[in-house]
Amino acid sequence: MTFCGVINIMEIPRGLRTYIYEQSARKRWVEERLLNVFFRWGFQEIITPAFEYLDTFSAGLALSKAEGINGESSDSTGSLYSTVSLNRVFKFTERGTGRLLALRPDITPQIARTAATLLKDSPMPLRLCYCGNVFRGADPGTGESQEVYQAGVELIGLDSAEADAETIAIAVECMKELGLKGFKVAIGQIEFFKGMLSDIEPDMRGEISLRIHKKDTSGLEDILQRGKIRAEKRERIKKIPSLFGGREVIDMGRETADNPLSLGAIDNLERVYRTLVSYGVEDSVLIDLGEIRGFGYYTGIIFEGFIKGIGSEICGGGRYDNLLERYGAKMTATGFAVDINRVIEALEKRGEAEALPCTTDYLVIDFREDKKIALEVSRRLREKGCRVARDIIKRGLEGSLQYAEKMNIKRAIIMGTEDLGEDEAVVREISTGEEKRVRIEEL
Amino acid sequence: MTFCGVINIMEIPRGLRTYIYEQSARKRWVEERLLNVFFRWGFQEIITPAFEYLDTFSAGLALSKAEGINGESSDSTGSLYSTVSLNRVFKFTERGTGRLLALRPDITPQIARTAATLLKDSPMPLRLCYCGNVFRGADPGTGESQEVYQAGVELIGLDSAEADAETIAIAVECMKELGLKGFKVAIGQIEFFKGMLSDIEPDMRGEISLRIHKKDTSGLEDILQRGKIRAEKRERIKKIPSLFGGREVIDMGRETADNPLSLGAIDNLERVYRTLVSYGVEDSVLIDLGEIRGFGYYTGIIFEGFIKGIGSEICGGGRYDNLLERYGAKMTATGFAVDINRVIEALEKRGEAEALPCTTDYLVIDFREDKKIALEVSRRLREKGCRVARDIIKRGLEGSLQYAEKMNIKRAIIMGTEDLGEDEAVVREISTGEEKRVRIEEL
Repeated sequence: MTFCGVINIMEIPRGLRTYIYEQSARKRWVEERLLNVFFRWGFQEIITPAFEYLDTFSAGLALSKAEGINGESSDSTGSLYSTVSLNRVFKFTERGTGRLLALRPDITPQIARTAATLLKDSPMPLRLCYCGNVFRGADPGTGESQEVYQAGVELIGLDSAEADAETIAIAVECMKELGLKGFKVAIGQIEFFKGMLSDIEPDMRGEISLRIHKKDTSGLEDILQRGKIRAEKRERIKKIPSLFGGREVIDMGRETADNPLSLGAIDNLERVYRTLVSYGVEDSVLIDLGEIRGFGYYTGIIFEGFIKGIGSEICGGGRYDNLLERYGAKMTATGFAVDINRVIEALEKRGEAEALPCTTDYLVIDFREDKKIALEVSRRLREKGCRVARDIIKRGLEGSLQYAEKMNIKRAIIMGTEDLGEDEAVVREISTGEEKRVRIEEL
Repeated sequence: MTFCGVINIMEIPRGLRTYIYEQSARKRWVEERLLNVFFRWGFQEIITPAFEYLDTFSAGLALSKAEGINGESSDSTGSLYSTVSLNRVFKFTERGTGRLLALRPDITPQIARTAATLLKDSPMPLRLCYCGNVFRGADPGTGESQEVYQAGVELIGLDSAEADAETIAIAVECMKELGLKGFKVAIGQIEFFKGMLSDIEPDMRGEISLRIHKKDTSGLEDILQRGKIRAEKRERIKKIPSLFGGREVIDMGRETADNPLSLGAIDNLERVYRTLVSYGVEDSVLIDLGEIRGFGYYTGIIFEGFIKGIGSEICGGGRYDNLLERYGAKMTATGFAVDINRVIEALEKRGEAEALPCTTDYLVIDFREDKKIALEVSRRLREKGCRVARDIIKRGLEGSLQYAEKMNIKRAIIMGTEDLGEDEAVVREISTGEEKRVRIEEL
């Protein structure tokens, strides 16, 4: 094998990651916490395959593009919303048939497919949750992840403010469970925006949406002028990016609305907000009527969760009442997903990740030929739930203790040295060097 | 959308599976049990990407083919051994570069790559474990899984019988932890077989191996006759398929061996066996010197675990001292993987899966407009760790109780009916219909 060959096989594609030691422990810890919250709210896990027929996904993707506001640009935000474009999906062919398969760019269409098939005779609502990876091709140089880990819920079969409020309350509880302070969830209602644009020329809607999405008020003014929108309407649309804040935004939105769709959206938002007050989570809630991502996919309440100090949203979701229909089941649905890596990033930034358990408790070092006692001690400690590695390389005490230190093992149990009796051992704290002589049977 | 389109997007490719309700609960339960065993033995999790450059995998696959005994046919056994052929790997191209990517057919080469890169300065041994899915293209009609869930360990950097014995002891403990009785692990030593064939024409080795693998003794006799192997050697080779049983097989193997490599293999096997006796797991151990799968990949001890009543092996592994070298790190290694689905199958066959927790504890039904009390009760129960779904569809008591029954929810908490006081609730066992009136504050 050439040297070049060695380099090749050791290289990992961009946007992918291998998790070792505390990285994997953190990831597992976060995922377990999230699933525990979902389970406690009566959700049950669904595990879907990593790939399926491309058609299954393109049905959902087509939907998200149907009224697409800004095409590709909605992808590059790395949004949790299901607005991945088809050309970012990894495709390959099925053995024997040549049919196109795709790595899942999103789990929600798979759950929609399952709700419409395996679960079609189930009573409503369905409370389903998931935890898995999704795949999105990234261009060189963007630094984007190509494998994103997500956990989320879908509440299917219920078109009510209570259902939307439940998913938002779960999102808040997730962040509390993870110990992430400074969490805010910004809630919008996509129908408000759709209503506001309903009497605008379809050709102009995309441009207007893009400016509002970017909070580009001067660009917005230009377009509205060019489009010869009447002054009163212009003023209303220009207000949208500023409809952000606490409960008062509901009233501001109602004043801004000039059509039944937008007014209905505000009423719906108010009902959801009231339920969230009952849940006691209003301190974590903001209202953002200028939030318009996932325009084609979502049909009502939308929301995004942020943590102070983390630039991108940590979770996001909303109501998508038209997706399941694509799979032959006319069911309403609402849900959200958490970005696992952004959670880990938030924990690490705040130094809160340090407290996570991720090391081995004991290294058992026995210098005797017969390892019976070492095996017995290891077995007993494991039965108590301890994490125990045996030192099975011969290298002298110094070498073994260095190994324990480098591997971040908490304590060493030393047996079979000359100064110890047959039934004695020394327990050594690796970080401090503190030692305690004990009887082996006490271990 | 045409009707045909609806059919297409609801179809799932062959050999893939969606896990719902108790299926996903069982899968998660099994994975958690296995990881807990690995952690207790001082192993730390490593999480590798679902795809990488094809080159990374083909380095490992090339190795497994290098001395390949039966090429394609070793695949069709669905073995846990790393003998997946390159044409069963799902391939696709990297965006922007066109380089070939592959869905991982095996996690071990990824761990080898990580040991040789991220972990190359780590002290030895490395104790790494994993839990994930691997992908193997299957031909139509074979019924084979295309996505296989595995959990396993790799013990890297130590070429000793103790290391091999440790991984085998872990495999036995895994099955105990899962409550799977009747588990037997069959241990072989591939060098024994390599030694026995060392003075046979290379051209004939493949045919002989295939017959031994299939325990086809008459076919084996034919080939040995045709190959004009001398009578004494013929008798020795013909014995190999019968070298299966308890400790006595070690002595039988020593008598059969006629070369230093095979004799060394027997000595090594004896040391591993003795260590397994120290571990107290000899009752679960068989010796099988006729086990020759993974011929090119493995370099010493190999083993497979079986459960009574399940046709295929439930776990398998062994020593692979040449793999890491391919990635530029000359390190020895031993490990094994458990097939999660076969574990689930074994649990289900024995009815042992029934006891697994997988249902929601309470459905909270409140007929009052103001849901404050229902939310408060739900919150309190969740804080205690209970799984609580709120009934948020209006459908009357009968409908709600039917929902609870169909969704396998254990109990209903009913509040706000006419015959109940403000501070009262009824707790109803769904399976028996038994009811108890309680004060809400007691819940």
